[in-house]
Amino acid sequence: MIQPIITISREFGSGGRQIGEQVAKTLGLPFYDSTLIDIVAQKSGYSLEFVAENDQRITKSMLFQFAISGSVPPWLNGGKDITNRDTLFTAQSKVIRELASQGGCVIVGRCANYVLRDIPGHLSVFISGKLNDKVKRCTAEYGIHPDAAEAEMIERDRNRANYYSRFTGEVWGEAKNYDLALNSSKFGIEGVAQIVLMAAQKL
Amino acid sequence: MIQPIITISREFGSGGRQIGEQVAKTLGLPFYDSTLIDIVAQKSGYSLEFVAENDQRITKSMLFQFAISGSVPPWLNGGKDITNRDTLFTAQSKVIRELASQGGCVIVGRCANYVLRDIPGHLSVFISGKLNDKVKRCTAEYGIHPDAAEAEMIERDRNRANYYSRFTGEVWGEAKNYDLALNSSKFGIEGVAQIVLMAAQKL
Repeated sequence: MIQPIITISREFGSGGRQIGEQVAKTLGLPFYDSTLIDIVAQKSGYSLEFVAENDQRITKSMLFQFAISGSVPPWLNGGKDITNRDTLFTAQSKVIRELASQGGCVIVGRCANYVLRDIPGHLSVFISGKLNDKVKRCTAEYGIHPDAAEAEMIERDRNRANYYSRFTGEVWGEAKNYDLALNSSKFGIEGVAQIVLMAAQKL
Repeated sequence: MIQPIITISREFGSGGRQIGEQVAKTLGLPFYDSTLIDIVAQKSGYSLEFVAENDQRITKSMLFQFAISGSVPPWLNGGKDITNRDTLFTAQSKVIRELASQGGCVIVGRCANYVLRDIPGHLSVFISGKLNDKVKRCTAEYGIHPDAAEAEMIERDRNRANYYSRFTGEVWGEAKNYDLALNSSKFGIEGVAQIVLMAAQKL
């Protein structure tokens, strides 16, 4: 079997990262998430801080400034030319394609499902979860206070949706944009991982 | 294992009905499609008043027999056809709940995933597919001319989305509203059916 390239998109707190790690471990594949940001930073000339801070928080006003000025903002370290608002996404996409070209892997986030949509052997997955379960996970694993968890989740997911929409023209979380979508509250982390593995065998 | 109640929502032409039939056959469960639900709801003359007044008369077994035979029982012949959409949805929902109360089954369409959202042992599934594959299926199975297939699909899916949104307040086809969503172009009808069966075992 050719090793699959599995991309995972997820609601914040749904356990998508854990699922991705578990699937990667079972298949003996590399797992990429924040590591990917580092590589983007190195290869594109962005500062690590800029990418980490702005990866999924690129506001409209920032992008607008990019677009109208056509110049490198002073807070961007590095000095490579920035001529349009899609540069960061383009850099990320390039790295994602490079990583995928090296063989099977699991990539969480970064619109990788869209970037790799035409790659053979690619399985795109979306993970959702029930509100209460996501709040518990945010509290237990990310240390977010229960009272703040819901607002944090909404904000994070809104950012992800805006980012995805802006750069893909698709709707984040719409079932038809993924090969497989699963609710972690229904099946549990282990159950979802098993279903993803079974689906990967059917590619 | 308790027999699952599996509801299937689907894009027009995605093969969702075939998948539902195959899953039902494998599990030895009854299969109900939206046409059947409509016939039961329409011909039974389930006005809101009728439902309220005759609730005790409409036993589960009577309705089950009705659904299986597809014929109008004599005790319902006096009913009026339902023309009001809200009333029809109420009638459809009642039929769906009654059918599900009989035990394991597969139900396609009519917002059954929403109607049965709190029922234990319920697995809600959404099926999508790539445009080209859906066009082929529409042409081969429904006899729709290829030139007209895409417009027909768009129209049908728009109607489904509007209907779903109106009666559930949710977004049709949004991954988080289903336990499991699958792309039939990726896995094929047989592959999707196998994944659904595996997921049902994990309930």
